[in-house]
Amino acid sequence: MLRLDQHATGHHFLQIPGPSPVPDRILRAMSLPTIDHRGPEFGALGRRVLSGIREVFQTQHPVVIYPASGTGAWEAALVNTCSPGDPVLMFETGHFASLWQKMAARLGLETEVLSYQGADDQLPAAPGWRRGVQADLIEARLKQDTAHRIRAVCVVHNETSTGVTSDIAAVRRAIDAAGHPALLMVDSISGLASAEYRHDAWGVDVTVSGSQKGLMLPPGISFNALSPKALEASKTARLPKAFWAWDEIVAMNADGYWPYTPSTNLLYGLAEALDMLREEGLANVFARHQRWAAGVRAAVNAWGLPIQCADPAVYSPVLTGVITPPGVDADALRKLIHQRFDLSLGTGLGKLKGRMFRMGHLGDSNDLTLLAMVAGVEMGLKLAGIAIAGSGVHAAMDHFAAHPGAALTPLA
Amino acid sequence: MLRLDQHATGHHFLQIPGPSPVPDRILRAMSLPTIDHRGPEFGALGRRVLSGIREVFQTQHPVVIYPASGTGAWEAALVNTCSPGDPVLMFETGHFASLWQKMAARLGLETEVLSYQGADDQLPAAPGWRRGVQADLIEARLKQDTAHRIRAVCVVHNETSTGVTSDIAAVRRAIDAAGHPALLMVDSISGLASAEYRHDAWGVDVTVSGSQKGLMLPPGISFNALSPKALEASKTARLPKAFWAWDEIVAMNADGYWPYTPSTNLLYGLAEALDMLREEGLANVFARHQRWAAGVRAAVNAWGLPIQCADPAVYSPVLTGVITPPGVDADALRKLIHQRFDLSLGTGLGKLKGRMFRMGHLGDSNDLTLLAMVAGVEMGLKLAGIAIAGSGVHAAMDHFAAHPGAALTPLA
Amino acid sequence: MLRLDQHATGHHFLQIPGPSPVPDRILRAMSLPTIDHRGPEFGALGRRVLSGIREVFQTQHPVVIYPASGTGAWEAALVNTCSPGDPVLMFETGHFASLWQKMAARLGLETEVLSYQGADDQLPAAPGWRRGVQADLIEARLKQDTAHRIRAVCVVHNETSTGVTSDIAAVRRAIDAAGHPALLMVDSISGLASAEYRHDAWGVDVTVSGSQKGLMLPPGISFNALSPKALEASKTARLPKAFWAWDEIVAMNADGYWPYTPSTNLLYGLAEALDMLREEGLANVFARHQRWAAGVRAAVNAWGLPIQCADPAVYSPVLTGVITPPGVDADALRKLIHQRFDLSLGTGLGKLKGRMFRMGHLGDSNDLTLLAMVAGVEMGLKLAGIAIAGSGVHAAMDHFAAHPGAALTPLA
Amino acid sequence: MLRLDQHATGHHFLQIPGPSPVPDRILRAMSLPTIDHRGPEFGALGRRVLSGIREVFQTQHPVVIYPASGTGAWEAALVNTCSPGDPVLMFETGHFASLWQKMAARLGLETEVLSYQGADDQLPAAPGWRRGVQADLIEARLKQDTAHRIRAVCVVHNETSTGVTSDIAAVRRAIDAAGHPALLMVDSISGLASAEYRHDAWGVDVTVSGSQKGLMLPPGISFNALSPKALEASKTARLPKAFWAWDEIVAMNADGYWPYTPSTNLLYGLAEALDMLREEGLANVFARHQRWAAGVRAAVNAWGLPIQCADPAVYSPVLTGVITPPGVDADALRKLIHQRFDLSLGTGLGKLKGRMFRMGHLGDSNDLTLLAMVAGVEMGLKLAGIAIAGSGVHAAMDHFAAHPGAALTPLA
Repeated sequence: MLRLDQHATGHHFLQIPGPSPVPDRILRAMSLPTIDHRGPEFGALGRRVLSGIREVFQTQHPVVIYPASGTGAWEAALVNTCSPGDPVLMFETGHFASLWQKMAARLGLETEVLSYQGADDQLPAAPGWRRGVQADLIEARLKQDTAHRIRAVCVVHNETSTGVTSDIAAVRRAIDAAGHPALLMVDSISGLASAEYRHDAWGVDVTVSGSQKGLMLPPGISFNALSPKALEASKTARLPKAFWAWDEIVAMNADGYWPYTPSTNLLYGLAEALDMLREEGLANVFARHQRWAAGVRAAVNAWGLPIQCADPAVYSPVLTGVITPPGVDADALRKLIHQRFDLSLGTGLGKLKGRMFRMGHLGDSNDLTLLAMVAGVEMGLKLAGIAIAGSGVHAAMDHFAAHPGAALTPLA
Repeated sequence: MLRLDQHATGHHFLQIPGPSPVPDRILRAMSLPTIDHRGPEFGALGRRVLSGIREVFQTQHPVVIYPASGTGAWEAALVNTCSPGDPVLMFETGHFASLWQKMAARLGLETEVLSYQGADDQLPAAPGWRRGVQADLIEARLKQDTAHRIRAVCVVHNETSTGVTSDIAAVRRAIDAAGHPALLMVDSISGLASAEYRHDAWGVDVTVSGSQKGLMLPPGISFNALSPKALEASKTARLPKAFWAWDEIVAMNADGYWPYTPSTNLLYGLAEALDMLREEGLANVFARHQRWAAGVRAAVNAWGLPIQCADPAVYSPVLTGVITPPGVDADALRKLIHQRFDLSLGTGLGKLKGRMFRMGHLGDSNDLTLLAMVAGVEMGLKLAGIAIAGSGVHAAMDHFAAHPGAALTPLA
Repeated sequence: MLRLDQHATGHHFLQIPGPSPVPDRILRAMSLPTIDHRGPEFGALGRRVLSGIREVFQTQHPVVIYPASGTGAWEAALVNTCSPGDPVLMFETGHFASLWQKMAARLGLETEVLSYQGADDQLPAAPGWRRGVQADLIEARLKQDTAHRIRAVCVVHNETSTGVTSDIAAVRRAIDAAGHPALLMVDSISGLASAEYRHDAWGVDVTVSGSQKGLMLPPGISFNALSPKALEASKTARLPKAFWAWDEIVAMNADGYWPYTPSTNLLYGLAEALDMLREEGLANVFARHQRWAAGVRAAVNAWGLPIQCADPAVYSPVLTGVITPPGVDADALRKLIHQRFDLSLGTGLGKLKGRMFRMGHLGDSNDLTLLAMVAGVEMGLKLAGIAIAGSGVHAAMDHFAAHPGAALTPLA
Repeated sequence: MLRLDQHATGHHFLQIPGPSPVPDRILRAMSLPTIDHRGPEFGALGRRVLSGIREVFQTQHPVVIYPASGTGAWEAALVNTCSPGDPVLMFETGHFASLWQKMAARLGLETEVLSYQGADDQLPAAPGWRRGVQADLIEARLKQDTAHRIRAVCVVHNETSTGVTSDIAAVRRAIDAAGHPALLMVDSISGLASAEYRHDAWGVDVTVSGSQKGLMLPPGISFNALSPKALEASKTARLPKAFWAWDEIVAMNADGYWPYTPSTNLLYGLAEALDMLREEGLANVFARHQRWAAGVRAAVNAWGLPIQCADPAVYSPVLTGVITPPGVDADALRKLIHQRFDLSLGTGLGKLKGRMFRMGHLGDSNDLTLLAMVAGVEMGLKLAGIAIAGSGVHAAMDHFAAHPGAALTPLA
């Protein structure tokens, strides 16, 4: 009999780059009794989360909350803005950028994918999966599109498969420099509420996000943050849409309700998560993730293993991808670590399958839980017979000890 | 400050026809820590719920579980089976049948709606909203469609807006009698796991359902139960689909996984709900709801108020609609009851707005919670100055006392 | 296999006069991770509950919180104030008064019990178990004790076995009128936080209470509220004491700590309970219980069954005892009701065994849960073939409908 | 405002030697609704825990469960077996042995304390606080007591203040060798369910234990395991007793009930804990703690710091005491570690105040949580400027990697 409430050795360390470890406060909030989604209490809840989520996206405009997981929000962004056959320009930063492209193609859009242009670096996978979006390539391509056929530019903010956080403001500047009317649509599923993100200031038209990363919720709800231009575009876009249609949701959200049944208990969790983020302050939240990431990278560097992200300017604060030595099956290593130490790491996805693993540093983590993760990986590397240059645990300890986090709030 | 964990007077009675009151066992299960949806523990969970849910639909064929609320599963049924402009035949049994029709039209299908044919009964709303699907009208219409253009017949099993449970087997016989190849698609969002339902035996091609009714979960996940014929149809259907596409989900479900992030914590709740249903036995579950419904109808009859469902053969075991006297605003009554007694009742929807209210008898209920509901309504009727013929509370007490439930299992 | 998380029919109605139904807020608080009882967070918790509990006792003096259930607090009151062989004067108001007397005798005290003096009323049990403490008898007895040997007068505030709430201020006046130095020790285990109680204003020296009644916690912690005179007496009292000794606890409580391990998770629940009481205001709390009690008594009167408490001036706001007709085994009735309706009622204790049952109206209750209880009892009476004069449910409904509770706080 | 549900950095590491980190399964069980302690469900629960707890004590005789924390169970052992002025022989192994002695003296017993006889080792504190009970000293003393006045020999099994686990069977042999009728009373508050313990086989008359250590519960309930000889002794012992009296409890326990209100929700937790221990098997439980302890000691040895326990034969599997270098305030170190890393360590008690700290390895722990603790201590040592010989983290990692735990049960 499968027990849901116990792991093999007790506490499980969920250190994948999302779903992130969920704080107790949120799990508890989610277990409150479900209420009537048409009653007065729900309206108050709805208005509260709809207002709070705007602060997190740093937007003055509507954010649509779907009772569906993140992949649904990708689809929503496309079907609300595009018509059959519309060209969309994408940039291949990793596996999730590829998946979004495949979805767009499946929905009947004409997808064009830009890839990294630059020196190869002899490491596994396309070199583009180690770097951020090259905005200049986007600008050049848009300039060629003198007919302005391209409907949207779609990029991934924090590429969860690689640990690379692209410069979204630069993409906006590229579009503007090209004088092109394309919408800017950004996947920040794993970036939001961990890495700095400014929907309005960066001129994004649609930001797609999900609950199970920086918002620290379980998966199950997802988001489209909109711009006025995106809302305008949705009025004429002709891809069929009903469940995902923004119009009815935005209209009913004015009072805090939804046109159909929302995911009430995940909204309880969201209300709690928004409280936590507001109490800490977004700037502190971002700094906290940067500090964690630096500590984990110190460990990887000490091991002498390559970090998947080859450009320090775009290291992800959310996760760190680690490339295993030639001949080493990263998934066999992950399995060993899972079985011996009750520690889950992220797998290598797509082109990176078996060649790397991913360490998440988000959600309900702190110095000691991250050191536990690093220790688990280091023991696993040794047990697997993988030579390491030095101790990652020591490097991470040195980093955390030398760099205290923001002033901690005493609890009483 | 909105408190999520407390109502005005303490315990709230959620007696709408879904979301239903969620048993503690399920709320607790849902609050367990989220696990890796790509890890071995998840596969075991996935296989467990995918197997268990088939028992509830009484099917040997795949059941797709979406990380999206019920309206999404309506869309999924349509986009997987239909091509742009396909005619679909629907039957207007109430508000939800109408909403499904509007969705189909919005997705670009050609919808045709059959309505009740029979004597009017002078009560509010179209008389068709008081009775079940008339299968003979469907048979007649399909016989006219000699070109077999009609792609699907779409009906609602348990119409949540009215409290009418249609005879689905009769609809299948009608299609067969017409010798028509149309798919039979059924919404049993509020019927499944409360009212008898047999996906395979009744020859249904797609059954749509949700989590927040008979399955006793919060809203947030939903279902498509499939037939081989529906799966075959999905291979050539040309409405755009990606998130809802059956093919990838069914393929990955073989091992207990999903192509994208599932709603892990609601699946925990589903695992617990399936255990509860299996422990009790489906036949006992259905009998329990029938007994509850009879007790509540006894109360309504004692009050002398008309029941929305005019045909005793199709009374819903899940909810009972009650028509308020002319001139009485049912929503004002509901508001009074909510404020005074912390009791939520279902509103009149669409054509019935303000003319009726709905009493749910599903989820975590028992004789005493239902009597509490009946008492709350009776006090509200009196406070609102609505004349009643007799005591509904007494009638329900007499019913429950005279008809013991199935042998109760001692706990130890 | 015994399941702890499910009852035979779902929701169980725990309507005994304590342990009371525990609000979800408190159960959740109790399930938070245990902390170090010597760490800084604990000190803050300790100071918070020690301060808050004084408000509930309405005292400026120390309240000792024991990690032990209520019977322990009885013992604590005695061993801290008495020496072997000390005479203590008690008043037999019911079963719990008798048990406290037995404990005192077992601990080596010389107990003297005053009993009701007045007309007999032909109903079961000693007539004294239907009325409150007669302060004039206490005064007379103390006046006889010219040597001032009597160490303490011990009375029960709210006698849980009968539903009688004695006038404690009158007992203080009697002691003063006698000019006697005896300590006044009061058991308000089931009165505190439901019935008005004023430790300081009423001149009580030791008040004994527990967690599982008006404080709405599970059982497991208990209280001694002290007066300066009691503290002074404890310095010379010679009964052996260690675990119960006030001196070390009061000294360490100054900083929020305990000399030994406290019951941390029940203190979490206490912190939550104190918040709830403060949010509502004690006056509202007392009024709420009075209103509930009046509604339940209306039901009992309608049935035509005698209420155990024969003096309306001392009806308990916490519980109502109901005397069953001659020849009816009250416990067989209780068993029938438990089995058929998942409703627990209090048994007749001591002299009242089998002759009465007790209905609790405390804890996480509201109009509808109390009506559910009344309905369950009424069905049980009929099923047991007990003739009733009229409908208790109607009487209670009429009372609750005609007497709205205090203005309810909107939740948002 | 003090938040109970959040620590400064998120997850808190409670690594004191009890209360131990409580598994989620137990916290959840404890938050179930309270039931009637006189109802049929409670009887089933009572019988279940009373039976299960005997397995843990490895006894065929009654185990009394008190609704009081562990210090109460010390008192219970004494007041049930002794009469005023009875001599009791104790052995000073550490702070808790001293506290038990003080309690006995306060209760009016004549206490005699044996102390370590052997070479001093120049390290802080009496050398006896670094070693186990010396059974030969007990034997010699008992032989002198030819009048057999000594009523009981009281020893501590696992001395929580030092991390020393004495040989209880040797004490029994000593008493027998002396031909002395004294009762053997053992405090295994922090040993039970972590360190091997055999109440019957070792001839113990009363074993005292608590909930918040190896049983992994929060504090609040405690235990007396009895022998027939102890039960016999209680019939004539003359210290006053009521709450603690075995007779009434043992009598009522036969049916699964208590004479007064038990701590229902902690008994829920106990039921869950007993399930967990039975599922794993006691032998595996003991081996698990031994393996953890060896890993932690490897760390301390690598640091070059002395372990408080000077005799490897009696290293505690539950906790490890670490002596800080001369001039270093161990409590200042603990405070630094708490503030920087949200890690609680045990303080030095009594004679050891400020000279050592204690690392707990019990409760809901595993390799990675223990490595997190070790890492937190190691960072703290460095931040405090304390020189260490080598890396404790590495030593512990090497130990855990080289010594896999018992075969882990796959979850599905």
